[in-house]
Amino acid sequence: MSTKLVIVGTVALDDVTTPFGSVLRALGGSAFYGGLSASYWTSVGVVGIIGNDYPEEGLNVLKGRSVDIRGIQRSEEKTFGWTGEYTYDMNTAITRETRLNCLLSFNPQVAEHYPRPETLFLANIDPDIQGRILDALPVKPPLIALDTMNYWIESKKDSLLRVLKRVDLLTINESEARMLTGQFNLVLAARTIREMGPKVVVLKKGEHGALVFYEGGIFASPALPLEVVKDPTGAGDSFAGGLLGYLTAHAHLDPEFLKQASIIGSVMASFCVSEFGVEGTRNLSSELISSRLREFGDLTGFRKISYEERRL
Amino acid sequence: MSTKLVIVGTVALDDVTTPFGSVLRALGGSAFYGGLSASYWTSVGVVGIIGNDYPEEGLNVLKGRSVDIRGIQRSEEKTFGWTGEYTYDMNTAITRETRLNCLLSFNPQVAEHYPRPETLFLANIDPDIQGRILDALPVKPPLIALDTMNYWIESKKDSLLRVLKRVDLLTINESEARMLTGQFNLVLAARTIREMGPKVVVLKKGEHGALVFYEGGIFASPALPLEVVKDPTGAGDSFAGGLLGYLTAHAHLDPEFLKQASIIGSVMASFCVSEFGVEGTRNLSSELISSRLREFGDLTGFRKISYEERRL
Repeated sequence: MSTKLVIVGTVALDDVTTPFGSVLRALGGSAFYGGLSASYWTSVGVVGIIGNDYPEEGLNVLKGRSVDIRGIQRSEEKTFGWTGEYTYDMNTAITRETRLNCLLSFNPQVAEHYPRPETLFLANIDPDIQGRILDALPVKPPLIALDTMNYWIESKKDSLLRVLKRVDLLTINESEARMLTGQFNLVLAARTIREMGPKVVVLKKGEHGALVFYEGGIFASPALPLEVVKDPTGAGDSFAGGLLGYLTAHAHLDPEFLKQASIIGSVMASFCVSEFGVEGTRNLSSELISSRLREFGDLTGFRKISYEERRL
Repeated sequence: MSTKLVIVGTVALDDVTTPFGSVLRALGGSAFYGGLSASYWTSVGVVGIIGNDYPEEGLNVLKGRSVDIRGIQRSEEKTFGWTGEYTYDMNTAITRETRLNCLLSFNPQVAEHYPRPETLFLANIDPDIQGRILDALPVKPPLIALDTMNYWIESKKDSLLRVLKRVDLLTINESEARMLTGQFNLVLAARTIREMGPKVVVLKKGEHGALVFYEGGIFASPALPLEVVKDPTGAGDSFAGGLLGYLTAHAHLDPEFLKQASIIGSVMASFCVSEFGVEGTRNLSSELISSRLREFGDLTGFRKISYEERRL
């Protein structure tokens, strides 16, 4: 099966502490989480870089899900790593340390491996690199999605604005959307971002779900309320993986597919946060996914209400 | 038409400042907002107290919506008042002053006017008074709902716990739910509250909507993302009014009606916050309500997803 969705981002080893425990050198990274999540919905390839200390198990997890890993380069330096902590407020990560290591020499070769992807997801990396990847492609992919973070909004805003003009869909969290636009109101922030380029803006709100802004409407995709959120790391990337995996397999940015895709994003994020690292998403059965999809139907579905026919 | 829903709470004159302006002595209060909102969905009576400075216009607004105001007492003191402010974060009100005034002598006479209401909503007042109202009723109403606030959780927790045992539905915001239960996780907090008495817990999350916890499930009712939120005062009471107005007219706590009712709550809250005071809800046409209901359908409705039939 040819690779339809290509995800460019980090492959990481994360040290994470939450009120429910800690993990050291846990498998992680935006492309890793995104690729794993998307693999349940389409054929996916991951483009990233790993160091000489990266455990074989990480690649085996991806291969076990039939993820194409030809685009993962090996470096002689150490693997990129993140050390972070969450308190009971699981919406906000406290970054303790970022070890760039081999990420400093990351020069992703997308065009070489995947000259014509159906969907390209440029996960959170340097916007100059994101731009160069697009430059090197012989044709524009039908769907280009981008993620970014506060660091790039602050340090490379011009580069970010340039690459934003070239993408179809942006995933961004609340505070980043406010920082990027100077608008506090999220509807106005999303509208401003849509004027910057992306036709679709997916606003990630953590435990409050996501809002999808598209031409002519807004869709509210809830997060599943869970009794135990063990580790929110990777939730946003799992959301994006599910969303884009589904969109790749369908008619791209049609509103009805967008709505379904964002529910699938929420479903995949709900699996992600229920365990540490990738334990929640590495091995999901059809039954488990189908049952979780039904839960989301119950969570948001209601019978049509007619005001005219109300009983007074 | 006999009064089916009775709301006991405050009738107030509020001084409110938001980034979009200020109002002085605006019509407000929990029973006022709740009664106005509910009046679009059922026959409603308001039980409260007003001072000698209360403008006739306030009563006319209620009468204009056919709200029964026989239960509104007149006092020779001044009307209860609240002075509050919102910054751009419209989720949190900053209280500048609370003028209890005539509320100190409030002794609501529910049983006298309404011995057999179908639904009784005890909005946010002293839990001892809430308890005495229940004591005085000859029979338990089919549906009793209650609201409260941090002040009572801190100062009269035992009284609050006693009255909670006697009610069917509690509306409460996130921070109050955490304070009441000592649980940070909202699913666990809601479960703990359900063990305290109410079969249904409606967790209000401001711009993130509401979560309704009932036997066997959770429903996520979104807030409508709005470009302009002028004044959030009364949003929670408008939500409760719409919710209970609809439940009163239907089969009470059936999950399907609960879901519809919470969407109606969100619809009424969306009207409330779009203008200062009660300007957003005092005069709504059928067309406007029907059109807003359709917007909520678009905001959350999605076509069923089958994992087995996905296109890889």
